[in-house]
Amino acid sequence: MNADPSLAARLPLELPALDWITDAARVARLSQDFAWFSPVLKRQLADKTAEVAVRPRTEAEIRAVVAACARDAIPITVRGSGTGNYGQAIPLHGGVILDMSGYNAFGWVRSGAGRAQAGIRLADFDRQARPQGWELRWLPSTFRSATLGGLFGGGFGGAGSITYGPMAAAGNVLGVRVMTVEPEPRAIELRAPDAMLLHHVYGTNGIVLELEVALAPALDWIESIAIFTSFDAALAFASALGSAPGLVKKEVCFLGAPVPDHMTALAEYLPKGCHAVLVVMAESSQAGMEDMTTAAGGRISYRKTAAESGNRTLLEYTWNHTTLVAMKVDRGLTYIQSGFEPARHVEQVKALERLLAGEVLMHLEFLRTKDGAFNCSGLQLIRFTSEERLNEIMQIYRDHGVTINNPHVFILEDGRQGQLNPAVVELKRRFDSQGLLNPGKMRSWTAPHAD
Amino acid sequence: MNADPSLAARLPLELPALDWITDAARVARLSQDFAWFSPVLKRQLADKTAEVAVRPRTEAEIRAVVAACARDAIPITVRGSGTGNYGQAIPLHGGVILDMSGYNAFGWVRSGAGRAQAGIRLADFDRQARPQGWELRWLPSTFRSATLGGLFGGGFGGAGSITYGPMAAAGNVLGVRVMTVEPEPRAIELRAPDAMLLHHVYGTNGIVLELEVALAPALDWIESIAIFTSFDAALAFASALGSAPGLVKKEVCFLGAPVPDHMTALAEYLPKGCHAVLVVMAESSQAGMEDMTTAAGGRISYRKTAAESGNRTLLEYTWNHTTLVAMKVDRGLTYIQSGFEPARHVEQVKALERLLAGEVLMHLEFLRTKDGAFNCSGLQLIRFTSEERLNEIMQIYRDHGVTINNPHVFILEDGRQGQLNPAVVELKRRFDSQGLLNPGKMRSWTAPHAD
Repeated sequence: MNADPSLAARLPLELPALDWITDAARVARLSQDFAWFSPVLKRQLADKTAEVAVRPRTEAEIRAVVAACARDAIPITVRGSGTGNYGQAIPLHGGVILDMSGYNAFGWVRSGAGRAQAGIRLADFDRQARPQGWELRWLPSTFRSATLGGLFGGGFGGAGSITYGPMAAAGNVLGVRVMTVEPEPRAIELRAPDAMLLHHVYGTNGIVLELEVALAPALDWIESIAIFTSFDAALAFASALGSAPGLVKKEVCFLGAPVPDHMTALAEYLPKGCHAVLVVMAESSQAGMEDMTTAAGGRISYRKTAAESGNRTLLEYTWNHTTLVAMKVDRGLTYIQSGFEPARHVEQVKALERLLAGEVLMHLEFLRTKDGAFNCSGLQLIRFTSEERLNEIMQIYRDHGVTINNPHVFILEDGRQGQLNPAVVELKRRFDSQGLLNPGKMRSWTAPHAD
Repeated sequence: MNADPSLAARLPLELPALDWITDAARVARLSQDFAWFSPVLKRQLADKTAEVAVRPRTEAEIRAVVAACARDAIPITVRGSGTGNYGQAIPLHGGVILDMSGYNAFGWVRSGAGRAQAGIRLADFDRQARPQGWELRWLPSTFRSATLGGLFGGGFGGAGSITYGPMAAAGNVLGVRVMTVEPEPRAIELRAPDAMLLHHVYGTNGIVLELEVALAPALDWIESIAIFTSFDAALAFASALGSAPGLVKKEVCFLGAPVPDHMTALAEYLPKGCHAVLVVMAESSQAGMEDMTTAAGGRISYRKTAAESGNRTLLEYTWNHTTLVAMKVDRGLTYIQSGFEPARHVEQVKALERLLAGEVLMHLEFLRTKDGAFNCSGLQLIRFTSEERLNEIMQIYRDHGVTINNPHVFILEDGRQGQLNPAVVELKRRFDSQGLLNPGKMRSWTAPHAD
């Protein structure tokens, strides 16, 4: 369904007041994300690129681009900062990259809710919200560069999901302003739960312009590392701490040995061979966490308030930054994403560690599921040998009752092991009737006239 | 072990500067609590009374009373506002009531922690903490009169336990200042977890002078009633709402028909025969809760902000205020307290409702357990016929895998169906070596020379 390349190339001439990127190398870079974490995706997606990119600053500019694309049937791939790991923002069929990072105004914060334009960086949002007593409920490890719209369109949650669950949990997102793709684009406010039909579908069924989200009270956080010599003791500690209702926390990340050995910048706090739990606690919960550490046979090797941390935050060693940091040291690593059963996550982790230690390096993020069950999610590092062995490992996980969210596929339905919500597809039909948004990522529906 | 009554009677003469209550009728009233909820306890405890009561205003006054009692072996029963339901504050062996309600200074609030003297009323604490951005994590339905020390000494938690678990959960209580009972009383600061050895032991192992507790960020709350025609739909709604991690709440109380019919002051919002769920939501979570209500087939019949509520709060229709309100309408009712299994609480409730509807009226409080599991606790109303039938009902519950915290006993060990933590008993030996504190409530240890 590639449109005539000359059509996209003409857009900058037609809309000269906009901020266009036409240099092929820059466009190619803006077309990529962190899909190279996966050797599979890297092979499939490395050469994919848009023809031009544009960085609109106003809704009127967005509307002008979208109208022109709709008129000429030019594919549009909406992009935040390109911090995705599954090629969410990689255009498969050329066209235009709609880079939202310049559409980034902070709107307002009141009574536990806040609103901003989609391109606002998460760190910027917090910097403006915190003086008013509020902060975002979730911070992926990419929060410095990642945008709010990007998190909504292609992300999950992150730090904070231990309390508030994933972004998808009811109550987290209150509303979105969406633009349709048609010659005369409409901007529509959708409130939750309908707003959630645009969540995590890679910008395939509407262009999210603004988001209104529920916020968390801004607290003073302390970052710590608890280290252990026993895998089982560290795991039991992380699980008990994560679940403890009286200990207010933002992050509990378990790193089985030898994952911590890859974190060279933190080496002085991570004795070789240790198992580490990276935690971010509310100040009033710090003592309780430290009591639990001692009782579990561990010790605190690192403890810093925000003021003491300077520009460093342990959050940039969690979630997929763990993967990034480890891969910088060892390019032979890749990873998988796995979901345990809430009722027996500790037991499942132990069984898989016994079976695959050395080849699969255990990294767990503790969280509440969408329904509020306490659980952990794995972002295990894998010493990559072959795609065949990678698939075998994933099968061993499944055989232990662990679900795999395969991060080595870029089509929505493949990542979810099943059907999309029909209402998601219906919205695609209504808001993008020509199938121009991020084409090739949704298999369930293609425009009647697309080839 | 009753001391010579003349000894207690002499105390007011010996310490004339203190605020003594010696009038027998007033002392008898100060000796009682809400144990009359239980027909069993009412019969056993109705005639129990101290000989004198004293209301100290300073630590020096407390010390003077305690020193005198220790010298003369006079029993001391520490009391907050007497809102307990199990005779916690009812002296079994005469002596002195140490009424802490005048020892009530607010200390400080900072960084999510707060400190106050034990006799502060919970509502007073919140009134002073909220302008600084914080509030208590738990409010029993008696919060207007109940004291912080009383909640700690004889209570559980309450509204807020849906988020922070019971007061007993790690991280909720940070420290206590305790006075020993000896001729020269010592005041000792105990930090958590040791501080918790004095929790919910009815003031038997030390006199709690001050408490330091972790706080919750003060939010704007909205109180609502969701009503349903289907018991199962109301139950499923309450359970899903209670667990939902993105919906911030303070209270989810389920009242199966015909419990709501007893709430005459709310009759306009409670159609006869309805099942009702009383909820208190953070303002930004209200819309999400209302969406869930509609999706579950219910409707919102009552919705008020704090400003709109005036002096009324739905919290005074939850927890044991449900029992109180219902018993005012029907004195033939009593109640039990039950704990379900987190993994199958909905199924257990349905089975017991099918079996005992009409005789046992379902009242559930949703909460997180000490370990963070989502669950509900029952405060079922019972149409009382006999102690034998009451025991039968409790056995039916146990046969369904539901634990009973028997509210018809006043001895610590009987309410817990087992042993006390040995460290609790050891503290009793150290801090109250003569066994003068609330004698008769702890069976595990009595002073060597007590009779």
